[in-house]
Amino acid sequence: MVGQKTESASQPTPRPDKRKAIILLSGGLDSATTLAMAQQQGYDCYSLAFDYGQRHRSELEAAKRLATQADCVEHRVMRLDLGLTGGSALTDLAIAVPESETDGIPVTYVPARNTVFLSLALGWAEVLNATDLFIGVNAVDYSGYPDCRPDFIKKFQELANLATKAGVEGSCYHIHTPLIDMSKAEIIKAGSALGVDYSETISCYQADDQGRACGLCDSCRLRRAGFEQADRPDPTRYR
Amino acid sequence: MVGQKTESASQPTPRPDKRKAIILLSGGLDSATTLAMAQQQGYDCYSLAFDYGQRHRSELEAAKRLATQADCVEHRVMRLDLGLTGGSALTDLAIAVPESETDGIPVTYVPARNTVFLSLALGWAEVLNATDLFIGVNAVDYSGYPDCRPDFIKKFQELANLATKAGVEGSCYHIHTPLIDMSKAEIIKAGSALGVDYSETISCYQADDQGRACGLCDSCRLRRAGFEQADRPDPTRYR
Repeated sequence: MVGQKTESASQPTPRPDKRKAIILLSGGLDSATTLAMAQQQGYDCYSLAFDYGQRHRSELEAAKRLATQADCVEHRVMRLDLGLTGGSALTDLAIAVPESETDGIPVTYVPARNTVFLSLALGWAEVLNATDLFIGVNAVDYSGYPDCRPDFIKKFQELANLATKAGVEGSCYHIHTPLIDMSKAEIIKAGSALGVDYSETISCYQADDQGRACGLCDSCRLRRAGFEQADRPDPTRYR
Repeated sequence: MVGQKTESASQPTPRPDKRKAIILLSGGLDSATTLAMAQQQGYDCYSLAFDYGQRHRSELEAAKRLATQADCVEHRVMRLDLGLTGGSALTDLAIAVPESETDGIPVTYVPARNTVFLSLALGWAEVLNATDLFIGVNAVDYSGYPDCRPDFIKKFQELANLATKAGVEGSCYHIHTPLIDMSKAEIIKAGSALGVDYSETISCYQADDQGRACGLCDSCRLRRAGFEQADRPDPTRYR
């Protein structure tokens, strides 16, 4: 019908000569950069966000905007209630988000989160016949989460090839972690060169409904320091 | 208040001298036997079922009844929509459940299902401070799913110790698979000796709302043959 545009009609269609990749897209700085890198490498990108009971729900809106801006072939939001199991300041409102540096693995760690996220991404990848998964984990300027380290990623990749029909039948899954050895400043420089609009990203663990950041949590502090060290203006909207 | 009994008051409380275990409890024959084995080994059992968009939803009711009968400390049902990604006869009503033997890995395979289930169980285990997880996978009389094999389980166990705060801090996760090398008949004999009431279990991939089995799908055929080979009466209600 003339003058009407459905959501599906407005979506880019995959090109048969391009390889597909799943991108875990939280809506933060790191995953937005990872998406830009996957696109630069020529992948048709399928982005995946998780509505897992996180307190910073505005990141879900950011992820959706970023996926649209980046012409992802499809953006999916999977719901799962990690708040049911609790154990993290990100899913349990009774546990405060720390606003100064803490020792060890902080209470913002969500038990087994990246294992759960990668598992669900793997299921979608298998259905799409995609063998490339991108995740923006980083083991330099990060919060010390165990499931952001190279050893974990390597093991998950090995698991993926044993866990799936596609793996058993000869497909070889690759978990891409383009940011893993980069500092936050390096990530920001690389993403800026690829045109990432960081004003659209939300990193704050306790961003408000309008997406405004606290400026105090671990994630805000790492992000702010990153812009300083990269000598770039920080576009974050603080409240 | 006298004469009133709340659900929480009726639940058994964990004993501090006992170790906790998470049991993946689908409501089928294998997981019911696995639960009985974990209890016999002296664990306080926390059972976990998944409402993942499966067509055979009556298995969720079976799981709940089995957990109650077995005095599980807690029974949880986690919701996640694996139907969103599709790719399986168990989650996509447009794909028929095969009613005769097929070659290779059948269409009832759900992409990355056991990886997803074990990941979510791992998150709960970490919060409960439990390091023992039980799963009723079987690699003898089974449907050929890749994520039921010993290699997969071994790899997931390695992953669990890298993926979690508890693992990094020295806890050692153990994925128990007491059925993995048993035939269906051996499982039935062992469970019967432990008092498992198999009339309460539902294995059928297309059980109806009343929990009645088709008698034709892969899971029904393996189950029926198991009772025959074990020389036990088959208590399954067929429609």
